[in-house]
Amino acid sequence: MRDRVRVVLSHTTHPGNIGACARAMKTMGLERLYLVNPKFFPDPQAVAMASGAADLLERARVCASLEEALAGTTYVLGSSARRRDLAPVWLSPRQAGERLVGQAQRGEVALLMGTERMGLSTEEALQCHALATIPANPEYPSLNLASALQILAYEIRLASLDGWAVPVPPDPPATREDMDMLYQRLEQTLVIIGFLDPTKPRRLMDRLRRLFGRAGLEQNEVNILQGILAHAQNGPWQPPDQ
Amino acid sequence: MRDRVRVVLSHTTHPGNIGACARAMKTMGLERLYLVNPKFFPDPQAVAMASGAADLLERARVCASLEEALAGTTYVLGSSARRRDLAPVWLSPRQAGERLVGQAQRGEVALLMGTERMGLSTEEALQCHALATIPANPEYPSLNLASALQILAYEIRLASLDGWAVPVPPDPPATREDMDMLYQRLEQTLVIIGFLDPTKPRRLMDRLRRLFGRAGLEQNEVNILQGILAHAQNGPWQPPDQ
Repeated sequence: MRDRVRVVLSHTTHPGNIGACARAMKTMGLERLYLVNPKFFPDPQAVAMASGAADLLERARVCASLEEALAGTTYVLGSSARRRDLAPVWLSPRQAGERLVGQAQRGEVALLMGTERMGLSTEEALQCHALATIPANPEYPSLNLASALQILAYEIRLASLDGWAVPVPPDPPATREDMDMLYQRLEQTLVIIGFLDPTKPRRLMDRLRRLFGRAGLEQNEVNILQGILAHAQNGPWQPPDQ
Repeated sequence: MRDRVRVVLSHTTHPGNIGACARAMKTMGLERLYLVNPKFFPDPQAVAMASGAADLLERARVCASLEEALAGTTYVLGSSARRRDLAPVWLSPRQAGERLVGQAQRGEVALLMGTERMGLSTEEALQCHALATIPANPEYPSLNLASALQILAYEIRLASLDGWAVPVPPDPPATREDMDMLYQRLEQTLVIIGFLDPTKPRRLMDRLRRLFGRAGLEQNEVNILQGILAHAQNGPWQPPDQ
């Protein structure tokens, strides 16, 4: 699906920014770069800034016009720092990622970025089906070109991964039974060491349950705590040679 | 709320990256920059890359140690490109933004970024309550330092704009200093009761730090645990009438 997304940079002034954009794209799994009339390209600064994404520069397509860069697309999303009178649909980056991924299921789509200084021209904005605006600090909304692309590409990636889930710890979690036995042993130990008076328990065990419950213990952590409690019940340890 | 978020860059190699990070921060409304042992700072490259965010560099606090940079914080979120064995909680950037904003409602919080080349050291990762991982292209996950920060700062901004935050307990959270004292007392106690052999510590304390770090302790919970440890050091209690 992401193979159907092209990133189009229009009239980019600084070649280093083209390289930084290539890097931002590749980190998010986008590979197809189109350049409309770049001021300097190819350029060693672009290669330097691309780091491990220089292959995208080699395969980049340099176009003489926006029309050429958008040929064959069925949907164009523009990036714009400010609202315009003649705007099409306005989207947040999140909505934009979802929309672009949805549209890519049925055709070629483009993410269009304007120049560093001025962004998209009015004519370019009119070529877009929707414009995405990053909700930046109104007192300083000046994102670097590659930074804006990084955020939009990140949202495109999230939308395309869909099933991406936070990795979970590999260790097996403690069961309810593990935890019950732990709390029993803990209570017993607190009585033995004189911290808990069984005639006046107050809410101590509730508080400790809340604390450990919040941590979400693993089985091996329960084993460690059980070991500590077993030792605590026996009191200060005497070295064998004493 | 965003005033309670500090961004901590540890041992940054290239001053241009510090400037780019300042710019990424300011575009997302974050203003407090802490630098732990930067290789070159202040530096004209940092100013050039900061563009309109050079004021953040002027107000940046240069620290001799991570401890100094994290002093007074109650929650630390680390940025990590890869999974680690002894990880605390793992979060997506979106979850991380929500968590950090929620925690900032009750105390000072930090977003910690490691070096360009290696990211966070294992020791630094152990100082974090949670690690955020950007779901990058596994074949090229190499985000520029400022790009990774841009994404995390964007998610922090979204979470803060939403007004939505993870509900947090009303009790005051433990400070770093509280937790350090707790771990010292815990280690001492484990030696006294014979559970921890100081000549073969293995990774026991790291595991316990990870467990309690995940829980995010409150001050009154630290007090309870300190009380338990004090009693455990004295061993089984003898009732007065025996």
